[in-house]
Amino acid sequence: MAAAKKKILFVVMDGLGDRGCKALNGMTPLQATATPNLDWFAANGISGTIDIVAPGVTPGSDTAHLSLLGYDPYEVYTGRGPFEAAGIGLIGKKGDVAFRCNFSTVNDKYEITDRRAGRVKAPETTELIKAMSGITMDGIEVLVKEGTEHRAALLLRGKGLDPDVTDADPHDLGPVALSKGRTKNAEFTASVLNKFVKLSYERMKDHPVNVRRRKNGLPEANILLPRGAGSFPDIVPFPEKNKMNAACVAGVGMIKGICGICGLDIIDVPKECTGGLDTDMIKKAEVSLKALKKYDFVMMNVKAPDVCGHDGRAELKCSVVSRLDEMAAYLKKNMPSDLVIVFTADHCTPVETGDHTGDPVPVTIYTDALAKDEATKFSESGCARGSVGRIRGRDLLPICMNLANRSEKYGA
Amino acid sequence: MAAAKKKILFVVMDGLGDRGCKALNGMTPLQATATPNLDWFAANGISGTIDIVAPGVTPGSDTAHLSLLGYDPYEVYTGRGPFEAAGIGLIGKKGDVAFRCNFSTVNDKYEITDRRAGRVKAPETTELIKAMSGITMDGIEVLVKEGTEHRAALLLRGKGLDPDVTDADPHDLGPVALSKGRTKNAEFTASVLNKFVKLSYERMKDHPVNVRRRKNGLPEANILLPRGAGSFPDIVPFPEKNKMNAACVAGVGMIKGICGICGLDIIDVPKECTGGLDTDMIKKAEVSLKALKKYDFVMMNVKAPDVCGHDGRAELKCSVVSRLDEMAAYLKKNMPSDLVIVFTADHCTPVETGDHTGDPVPVTIYTDALAKDEATKFSESGCARGSVGRIRGRDLLPICMNLANRSEKYGA
Repeated sequence: MAAAKKKILFVVMDGLGDRGCKALNGMTPLQATATPNLDWFAANGISGTIDIVAPGVTPGSDTAHLSLLGYDPYEVYTGRGPFEAAGIGLIGKKGDVAFRCNFSTVNDKYEITDRRAGRVKAPETTELIKAMSGITMDGIEVLVKEGTEHRAALLLRGKGLDPDVTDADPHDLGPVALSKGRTKNAEFTASVLNKFVKLSYERMKDHPVNVRRRKNGLPEANILLPRGAGSFPDIVPFPEKNKMNAACVAGVGMIKGICGICGLDIIDVPKECTGGLDTDMIKKAEVSLKALKKYDFVMMNVKAPDVCGHDGRAELKCSVVSRLDEMAAYLKKNMPSDLVIVFTADHCTPVETGDHTGDPVPVTIYTDALAKDEATKFSESGCARGSVGRIRGRDLLPICMNLANRSEKYGA
Repeated sequence: MAAAKKKILFVVMDGLGDRGCKALNGMTPLQATATPNLDWFAANGISGTIDIVAPGVTPGSDTAHLSLLGYDPYEVYTGRGPFEAAGIGLIGKKGDVAFRCNFSTVNDKYEITDRRAGRVKAPETTELIKAMSGITMDGIEVLVKEGTEHRAALLLRGKGLDPDVTDADPHDLGPVALSKGRTKNAEFTASVLNKFVKLSYERMKDHPVNVRRRKNGLPEANILLPRGAGSFPDIVPFPEKNKMNAACVAGVGMIKGICGICGLDIIDVPKECTGGLDTDMIKKAEVSLKALKKYDFVMMNVKAPDVCGHDGRAELKCSVVSRLDEMAAYLKKNMPSDLVIVFTADHCTPVETGDHTGDPVPVTIYTDALAKDEATKFSESGCARGSVGRIRGRDLLPICMNLANRSEKYGA
């Protein structure tokens, strides 16, 4: 008799964990806010805390989500280039080399006068990037995509690429840097990169967007300067590794990119799911539950608590916690019975710190058949009372797969 | 002043851990049953939970006991062949290659007509196997032993053996497969194996047992078909590794086999210790305490709770838990004062799942001098309150050796 396999939903409340806040009499937003529905899951499930990467290590959103998806970031994380590229939709594969880029301004002596081209943004960057489409040079396919504000990403695809090259962005004003291979093998990649930079200038310098900016006295966005080379990691795709088809429901590009690199399908979210403070969380929960009809595993990310942390707003984070609790009520009411549901965060973003920290995050796992523990409150301290103990981020998925009756016996 | 060394007893209650059961109002058998004596150990000892192999990984009995004995199964587990062979008493050593076998039926065209020879069993298999004793071929010693029903094990011992060979069992009806070496080096082993298969047919086809089966219209058990080749692991024997002489008290063959591979002495248990539901647990505890007069470490296994899990019987598992608690009362009353005693399980076998799962198991460690914790109930959730936290299976032995004043200083 094999027990029926269950499905798995990760509800990742981005940056949710916090520290005691002066504005909240030393409590965290989770401790200071009534969360009857999240508490119901804690009281009826099992809880604990997670060192997303390792104790005391502050995760980025990229390394955090890799860990939550069961990968060891120390093995598969190859740097910001490929993960930022993936974050704006340039999802590469093994062998591809990716870079972060800035739209910058150079004068007619080819000297940088503004590294961010006056913080140019869409729709101008979207127009400009079209001039860089369909390029192949020396047998290398060149893909470019605009990001937020003056940012963009570059992906090179073809034979003989090597990420061990220096930046074409000198990180300062003055002459454009010439990329060099740090090894003999990387010289070809550097030469392609230098040709690309020159071509970007040629194609954009007299682009209608820049003619207009010149007329309006704005810095021209007339060159793309790549930096942070990295190769795409050789990741065993999540569905193959875990024998589950899987999807991502997220508003933020970077989360979609990471999930995309790991082989999850990316679900289009309705425009109400903005990835910002104004997001419709219940809509996102609805989309996730719908996705579970087709997929075995869904990774859902709600960005709003992270935004409050970065902005240092304790009261606002409490109100976001209340809204997350309403979302938990919706999930409790509408979730299927054959589900393992997980409430956690990808990292802490304490409001008094204003950035990610390496504090452990709370976690509650609920399904209808488990050995309930003594935790009754979903918070940093409440979850720490539970039977899950203190685990690593990459252990969460195997633990949930076991509860979903998807763990294969090792031995006889 | 060096503290006096204590002895160590592991009481492994096989498959004890569980999940909430509908039949028990969402409680586990341990949560639903009064266990005053196990609770006494929890209240006076230290408790925690164990991921026997790793979080979420479902252990087999073999990989689980290797972990509890302090070995990393990912390093020493070499597959089912050698561990099943050891389980039925063919305990090999480094260099030996072992196989699982079936007694099967072939017709006069040497085609398999029944892979299990009508589920032939002892005493017929015991009679048949005698025909295969004392064989040496090409300098290789051949050892065969019958297992439960139609199962048997084969062990090859001698120079130049290599387990990288294909099965002689085609896993289907039709012609007997010819084993092949997957590498040049394994070709010799394959040729020995093929000779063995042919010889088994020659020696058994007209054996009195088969003459009788033929007469009674039963499928003849006239060939042995080996599969699942594996080499015996190169294990540092437990007594040498831990500087403790050690014994195993178990009713189940496989547990004895694993302990045997690890170099523990196997204590013969009286026939009341059946390894089944009807086992005399107190008798087993008595044998274990007696063994502790001679041995520093005793691994005791009680199989009964696992049987209830596999059979899906919640109430029965509760009654077994009550009997385990009586056994704990006996141990409490009769154990020597210089003992570190451990109550735990090798894995969970939840009654609603009917098979092993990778949920962590509860553990309580008691000795007369330790820093007591706040756990007071021996159960999945009760032990999780304790100070041991969430540990790995292979860490249990070092933790106990330390409490037994047997841990050597690392450094100065």
